[in-house]
Amino acid sequence: MERYKVTLAYDGTQFFGFQRQGRSRTVQLEVEAALRKLGWDGRAILSSGRTDRGVHAAGQVIAFDLDWKHSPQELGQALNAHLPEDVAVKAVEITQPDFHPRYDAVSRCYHYHVWFAPQRDPLRGRYAWRIWPPCSLESLQAAARLLHGTHDFAAFGAPLRAGGSTIRTVFQADWQADSADGAWSFRVTASAFLYHMVRRMVFVQVLAGQQRLSLEDLQRAVEQASPLTPGLAPPQGLVLQAVQYTDAFADNRQVSKDQRNTL
Amino acid sequence: MERYKVTLAYDGTQFFGFQRQGRSRTVQLEVEAALRKLGWDGRAILSSGRTDRGVHAAGQVIAFDLDWKHSPQELGQALNAHLPEDVAVKAVEITQPDFHPRYDAVSRCYHYHVWFAPQRDPLRGRYAWRIWPPCSLESLQAAARLLHGTHDFAAFGAPLRAGGSTIRTVFQADWQADSADGAWSFRVTASAFLYHMVRRMVFVQVLAGQQRLSLEDLQRAVEQASPLTPGLAPPQGLVLQAVQYTDAFADNRQVSKDQRNTL
Repeated sequence: MERYKVTLAYDGTQFFGFQRQGRSRTVQLEVEAALRKLGWDGRAILSSGRTDRGVHAAGQVIAFDLDWKHSPQELGQALNAHLPEDVAVKAVEITQPDFHPRYDAVSRCYHYHVWFAPQRDPLRGRYAWRIWPPCSLESLQAAARLLHGTHDFAAFGAPLRAGGSTIRTVFQADWQADSADGAWSFRVTASAFLYHMVRRMVFVQVLAGQQRLSLEDLQRAVEQASPLTPGLAPPQGLVLQAVQYTDAFADNRQVSKDQRNTL
Repeated sequence: MERYKVTLAYDGTQFFGFQRQGRSRTVQLEVEAALRKLGWDGRAILSSGRTDRGVHAAGQVIAFDLDWKHSPQELGQALNAHLPEDVAVKAVEITQPDFHPRYDAVSRCYHYHVWFAPQRDPLRGRYAWRIWPPCSLESLQAAARLLHGTHDFAAFGAPLRAGGSTIRTVFQADWQADSADGAWSFRVTASAFLYHMVRRMVFVQVLAGQQRLSLEDLQRAVEQASPLTPGLAPPQGLVLQAVQYTDAFADNRQVSKDQRNTL
């Protein structure tokens, strides 16, 4: 029996979010069903955190214990053979027996994709938010700079547990051009995120970018946790891009092999 | 009554191609249904050409005659209100009464998207072809250069009418990086295309890029119409990007307005 760390990608469009909820079609339900076909009989897989209904992932991290006689790479192939089209394993490694993808994570990175256009575009609408009137990109960048650092982000989301801390540290937050034809993304890395925090950050930055919210009000919301207009950016623009772990877990395959060698 | 030239975008995934086929869900069927809600009672809209099942469009061009009392822009908004999520009007203009989107077109441009990876990626698979083992990009570019010019493209597709000419002129054909993370696209502009010609071109270039087909064999197929291994790149990587018209039609809104002024 080994503990496996697995990186997953999924298109969230047809899922009721990541986390198992009865018999609704969730990512967790599909991954657990695929694992059971390989002999897994655990109660629940571990994850870095849930994603909302309609949110995508390029680098969600999960973990589980499994008795598997072949290589990690073959485990990935076997899982992909059993998973539906809209979820796939991108990487598999053996990790330390006490590895937990949520509690051992040191940061998470999300990307949020937008484009500016007066009408729908069926080739973009699945993975991005259409915004009109357009934003001033200078205002978006100025808004993003206000989000850096350690703050009480109470104006941007709720803690996962009632009464939990709303203080978080944002390591990086900026807007980048995704393509030459007007697609942009907000890229944010933080120690952890409050519930709905990225979608809320995008929503208020877009208000600022459209000159419907002043940078002063945004700054007060960040520095003094003063309330802001309610509203959320829609889920389809959001991608859980990556979850980062400490060095101890970055090289955990080797650690684990050494441990086996001592048995 | 005016003739309207309309540029359409669609996600081909859920369509049985562009062209009406009984009651199957096709783009033409949906557009005609939306037009009927605006009082159109024509027999069929005109188009620049059909696209296959699963093929997308960013710039398909259609035309129809309609008695419409408001602006072209308002016609676009009204059509978008009646069209489903996966098809949208991008531009509307009044054109000359004899404009035909197929016969007046001087060239068409297609993009075909690929990425190189050993396993599936649910966030890419809807709009690109996954290729493994990877291609040498130098070989792809060398293969693309062989396609330039006027040739008998019989090895690359069938004429739309049995016995029709298989001679076509390729004005431009090359591979470009779509993003920093290994997504590439083949971009090709030609006078017109044979049935399946772009998907066939991509398939044989990928064989050359994987060193499974020599550039000499590809060159013979282009210059002497000698046969090649059968095979097609899958439809979901292909986008009808744009259809180009002569200057007479590029500025046709003004022409049409002048004509009206003389009535």
